[in-house]
Amino acid sequence: MRFSVLSIFPDFFDSPLSCGLLSKARDKGLVHFSFINPRDFSTDKHHNVDDRPYGGGPGMVMAVDPLRRALDSLPACARVLMMSPKGRPLTQSLARELAQEEELAIICGRYEGIDARLEQICRIEPVSVGDFVLNGGETGALCLIEAVGRLIPDFMGRDESADEESFSADVLEYPHYTRPEEYEGFKVPEVLASGHHGRIAAWRREQSLETTLSLRPDLLSRAALSDADVHYLKGMDRPRRGRNLFVALVHYPVENKTGQTITTSLTNLDLHDIARVSCTYGLGGYYLCTPVEDQRDLAQTLIEHWRAGHGLRANPDRSEALGRVRVVDLLESAVDDITARIGQRPKVICTSAKAGTLTFPQVADWLRDEPVLLVLGTGHGLHRAVISEADGMLRAIRFMDRYNHLSVRSAASIMVDRLLGDAG
Amino acid sequence: MRFSVLSIFPDFFDSPLSCGLLSKARDKGLVHFSFINPRDFSTDKHHNVDDRPYGGGPGMVMAVDPLRRALDSLPACARVLMMSPKGRPLTQSLARELAQEEELAIICGRYEGIDARLEQICRIEPVSVGDFVLNGGETGALCLIEAVGRLIPDFMGRDESADEESFSADVLEYPHYTRPEEYEGFKVPEVLASGHHGRIAAWRREQSLETTLSLRPDLLSRAALSDADVHYLKGMDRPRRGRNLFVALVHYPVENKTGQTITTSLTNLDLHDIARVSCTYGLGGYYLCTPVEDQRDLAQTLIEHWRAGHGLRANPDRSEALGRVRVVDLLESAVDDITARIGQRPKVICTSAKAGTLTFPQVADWLRDEPVLLVLGTGHGLHRAVISEADGMLRAIRFMDRYNHLSVRSAASIMVDRLLGDAG
Repeated sequence: MRFSVLSIFPDFFDSPLSCGLLSKARDKGLVHFSFINPRDFSTDKHHNVDDRPYGGGPGMVMAVDPLRRALDSLPACARVLMMSPKGRPLTQSLARELAQEEELAIICGRYEGIDARLEQICRIEPVSVGDFVLNGGETGALCLIEAVGRLIPDFMGRDESADEESFSADVLEYPHYTRPEEYEGFKVPEVLASGHHGRIAAWRREQSLETTLSLRPDLLSRAALSDADVHYLKGMDRPRRGRNLFVALVHYPVENKTGQTITTSLTNLDLHDIARVSCTYGLGGYYLCTPVEDQRDLAQTLIEHWRAGHGLRANPDRSEALGRVRVVDLLESAVDDITARIGQRPKVICTSAKAGTLTFPQVADWLRDEPVLLVLGTGHGLHRAVISEADGMLRAIRFMDRYNHLSVRSAASIMVDRLLGDAG
Repeated sequence: MRFSVLSIFPDFFDSPLSCGLLSKARDKGLVHFSFINPRDFSTDKHHNVDDRPYGGGPGMVMAVDPLRRALDSLPACARVLMMSPKGRPLTQSLARELAQEEELAIICGRYEGIDARLEQICRIEPVSVGDFVLNGGETGALCLIEAVGRLIPDFMGRDESADEESFSADVLEYPHYTRPEEYEGFKVPEVLASGHHGRIAAWRREQSLETTLSLRPDLLSRAALSDADVHYLKGMDRPRRGRNLFVALVHYPVENKTGQTITTSLTNLDLHDIARVSCTYGLGGYYLCTPVEDQRDLAQTLIEHWRAGHGLRANPDRSEALGRVRVVDLLESAVDDITARIGQRPKVICTSAKAGTLTFPQVADWLRDEPVLLVLGTGHGLHRAVISEADGMLRAIRFMDRYNHLSVRSAASIMVDRLLGDAG
């Protein structure tokens, strides 16, 4: 495979490509490198390749013409990539795809960026090494070259070790051990010295799952998992951010469609559905808030039917869910109850179908360390007095759309899932 | 700031650290580099630092002792990082955090990995450059050094250009242009030559939002967005994968809790809630499947009340949602109807609270190119005959937990949200 690298710093690549396996692969003729310096294609007498940006602002911009000419010098069959923060993220699966090519060209930008017209004129695929800012494309290009290069047949001493590592199988790697068998009191796990291949393989898989669950649970959402894997994960302890999350459904004060302050009546399936969400996601609690005593009595009667009455015999799972509902008069009582139970006042976060600036990842981060009470309105939404006293408002679900009319049951389900997912 | 790099290939870093701004920063004394070769700390006469893995398998493992000794040679105040796929992902926010330190040490592993006991004995923070496999930690360390180094005061010519780029503000950068004003028929956007700073800033922000929505909509979920940003995003066209997603709610054949085949009756709020989800997420359609004619008539009566009767006047939004529901006898009729409408048979994907192997990202990928019908059961779940004829089963929500009893309304809401999110 040939990598053609377009860079104004071709020397950047000298030492990294002369080390270790990449150097050996060059010697074996498995990979070839060409370096193309856009300065050599500049028609400017000083070989400049940059100029000031239209519209002002800091830094310089790489001009389109030298890069355009440099690209014209490449073999026509080359697949042309450009390192850019807006690109397709570099993943193991992209590396595997690129390893099938014969000719890859990589454009490395410098300064503030490259004149946008280059991409309008030439067929270029932007690739991003990660969500961080670098001085130019060279370092990302090196990651790409290494990730792709090592997948070329015969690159590694033995083929099997190239693609059987972390991310090759969408879970993190198991821990490695080598001699001595004991070091500063720490021993190699016994199973690894057992010689029992089946047990070693099972132990390594379990360690992989455990490491992934503990450090990168997000990877599990796309990992291929066997029934045995799922069974093992079910038995694992994990940090449960859900314990810090509380939900309140408010029947007063809420607004009607003309903005008047009203009290809404209880909806039986709100009670059931949100209780079932609370139980399934392991929430700290679910509060139903209505100042009307009759309505609180009705809620309690419904709950008792399932918690201890006929409902318990018919459906014990439902009993577990509804047994968690707490019926109170006002939102403040829910806040006080949480504060008394866990010794810390929760952050009170309102929700709305229309507005809100707090992002879900932001609130999910808070849940690591502190309690959060998510407040859901009934009717046409929470009264402005509730909103003005809260600690913030969560961004609306589907905030980029004009039609947004979910039931409070759906909204609660989606919000809790966005905050906790499968693992939280 | 001092970077101490532990690597058996210290020469790797020679040329990258002698180019561009990093080289200038070294000359100015802003950053210092020390290279520590674990081989120099090996007590083996051949200066070996690796050995075969306990438990077998390909490759070699870096031994704990030389690295442990190398770490002991560092200043006690150093914050010790290790490049590792299992680490905290390198992001701009981590780079900002690390830029506050005076002494950073970076361990670069090679071979299959490092003996796991090193982390048990020493305080080490693993950092990952991305979800791809490299030959060792050196290339990732270079990314980290560059991302962190450029945030040190005075590193950049002007401070403002260090952190005002892509990911600094959680959205992608606007396009850059420099001379000439016209190139191969492509002109610089007029606004940039207007000299009107307010209009230029607004245009650049809009371009940033547009690029992010089109290429990395996932970034918007954590981006800080103003009301004007949200207003602009609402007006943007975007690929709507939701159009390829259909939902069917099946009342027959389903199972009861003893596994017998039954027909369930209609639930009014299933009709409403899932219709509202379908409309809010712009789905291709929502099918209600019951072979009982009376039940279909009842469903139609309910729908007509909201679509054209009193309900329309009371709540036109509800009318829009319920007007989309199609009532059919069996799942096959829903499949036939979709096939007739769009000229392609949908992939039929079952759902369950207990099992399933298809991941959400996998099904979300399909939605780019082909129709998918998500089949939800009532009662105690879909009949095994439905499952065995489907093209697959989606992994259960909260698959790592034993308690999982969401209502079908909640499950439908969460599944659709996981497949489409805010932008899909």
